[in-house]
Amino acid sequence: MKVNGEDFQTIWLDSTESIIHIIDQTKLPHHFTTKPLHSLDEVINAIKIMEVRGAPLIGVTAAFGIAFAMKNNSSDDSLKDASSRLFQSRPTAVNLQWALNRMNKELMPITSEKRFEAAWSLCQTILDEDIKTNQSIGKHGLDLIENNFNKKTLQILTHCNAGWLATVDYGTALSPLYYAYNKGIDFHVWVDETRPRNQGAHLTAWELGQHKIPHTLISDNAGGHLMQKGEVDFVIVGADRISMHGDVCNKIGTYLKAVAAFENNIPFYVAAPKSNIDRDATKNFFDIPIESRHEEEVLMMQGLNSNNELTNIQIAPKGTRAFNPAFDITPHKYVTKIITEDGVYSPQELKSVYS
Amino acid sequence: MKVNGEDFQTIWLDSTESIIHIIDQTKLPHHFTTKPLHSLDEVINAIKIMEVRGAPLIGVTAAFGIAFAMKNNSSDDSLKDASSRLFQSRPTAVNLQWALNRMNKELMPITSEKRFEAAWSLCQTILDEDIKTNQSIGKHGLDLIENNFNKKTLQILTHCNAGWLATVDYGTALSPLYYAYNKGIDFHVWVDETRPRNQGAHLTAWELGQHKIPHTLISDNAGGHLMQKGEVDFVIVGADRISMHGDVCNKIGTYLKAVAAFENNIPFYVAAPKSNIDRDATKNFFDIPIESRHEEEVLMMQGLNSNNELTNIQIAPKGTRAFNPAFDITPHKYVTKIITEDGVYSPQELKSVYS
Repeated sequence: MKVNGEDFQTIWLDSTESIIHIIDQTKLPHHFTTKPLHSLDEVINAIKIMEVRGAPLIGVTAAFGIAFAMKNNSSDDSLKDASSRLFQSRPTAVNLQWALNRMNKELMPITSEKRFEAAWSLCQTILDEDIKTNQSIGKHGLDLIENNFNKKTLQILTHCNAGWLATVDYGTALSPLYYAYNKGIDFHVWVDETRPRNQGAHLTAWELGQHKIPHTLISDNAGGHLMQKGEVDFVIVGADRISMHGDVCNKIGTYLKAVAAFENNIPFYVAAPKSNIDRDATKNFFDIPIESRHEEEVLMMQGLNSNNELTNIQIAPKGTRAFNPAFDITPHKYVTKIITEDGVYSPQELKSVYS
Repeated sequence: MKVNGEDFQTIWLDSTESIIHIIDQTKLPHHFTTKPLHSLDEVINAIKIMEVRGAPLIGVTAAFGIAFAMKNNSSDDSLKDASSRLFQSRPTAVNLQWALNRMNKELMPITSEKRFEAAWSLCQTILDEDIKTNQSIGKHGLDLIENNFNKKTLQILTHCNAGWLATVDYGTALSPLYYAYNKGIDFHVWVDETRPRNQGAHLTAWELGQHKIPHTLISDNAGGHLMQKGEVDFVIVGADRISMHGDVCNKIGTYLKAVAAFENNIPFYVAAPKSNIDRDATKNFFDIPIESRHEEEVLMMQGLNSNNELTNIQIAPKGTRAFNPAFDITPHKYVTKIITEDGVYSPQELKSVYS
């Protein structure tokens, strides 16, 4: 999608040198910088400190981590070790696990001499597939919008960032909106700030702004009020995982919006690639331990000071402790439709489609 | 309540000089500073820029604004003009209107020579009454807690700041918690950050910390997850206005917590003085225009930089617009009990008690 009028992806290959380039998302929205990654260690670091974030992008980046490891040492042990270290860099990311499984499954049977070449080629495939997947999500989502809404200036609310910055390109939850924009549909997006990491304020506001899509930033607290006032026609969010029952694990705060949407009879859509669906139908998402991230994310905030320098400030009184769960679970009861690259489904339909 | 081990109120009189002192709440939690107010203009400014905030404290402070105006010019015109200017400083604050009405009602019949003295005396009465009111709310709230909960480490969630900093002393929503603490009840408070003005992170965390009450700061997004996980035994918040139907106007985001509490069968309590109850039973709160505050409150944030200097940072990309509704309405359906200085009532009981 567009950055300063130019087309960009979040990750791209420099095949002559066998390296990749990423957008350093920790610097957004105030500085747009790209950086090269050359090694497994750099990939692990980029995932850990969230230079790359968003479930699909983490998966693609992790695949390149395996390729870098194979370039260095293509033994079975090296493959196992790289997979294990990448898995530990973000243990709750299901796409990461999916990408690692796929790399392992295809590389393990290959002789070690040919592994790097095969790995690099598979990474390219995974990257291209992500773009195609998101394009399909966008088209199915556009159909859903066109079939269900017909009004001047459709009002859409989104939480966190499930835009192109969370994927290779197009995004998941925002992909239908890019398609709708390109088709000339008149709409406006309410962007949840998404505390504590401010992905809405930092990333969604930035990417919609770069693409000239009308949007307004709101505090996470404001969405319920807007729904009550009839100012939200539908909510659309991404997902880190979806259970076969249609329960959705997504950024903390998703659940509150889903409950309020339900109470106000507002459709609540979840857009995600089918690789985010956990095929183990016996799994109850309410038993999953939720990742707690560092309390500093709640206690501190980053932005530009009056000299335009990136600055971290302490918000809470010294000595205050914080609790920082990263995700919550939205029960399928509150989910209207799930959009994947294959189509648009009710939560109840997932089992028959994906079993 | 306690500040560095010493007892403080948010506002107090210096009767020898006929001035008042306030805590400058815009500097909290990083700096504890008090300042004197000498004039109507200073009172209006303190209300406008939220050096004093919280519905009850705004009312008490506004009363002193009238007294200062009478000191300067005790004519009928001066009284009317001061009332009108104070009302405009925060038009949606019902306690402000209540305090102004009371001052006018008592001062108008008095000859202008005696008005300053009467005004000063009435301000003292209003200030003392606020403390007594909050003590009564605290005692009734304590009864409610003792009669309904009996477990080790009660988990309580609160939104915004309805503590002693929002009143003269004790607070409304937090008054029962101060009483519970003094009685040795074992509990812990989840403190909602309360974006965009961070009253939870700035004020509630500070006042609970100063009083040694166990608490943990959370992002506004986290409360629903905690409720799902059984980590919240009840929610308690204050109110800016309560309708005779029991609908509650309070800080933006209250509604989302109330809906989630309802879905999880968690009691949702609202504590407020009866002066916050709008006695006009024909009034539908859903028709009330909600105050929109400046978008800078969403786009910027204040805190301490690494040199311990108070710093404002810009969070969102340059050019981003924000919408900043200050309050929302929680329908009585989601309100379990309303605690006033007179007792504990269901929303449905308000009409018979306060008609």
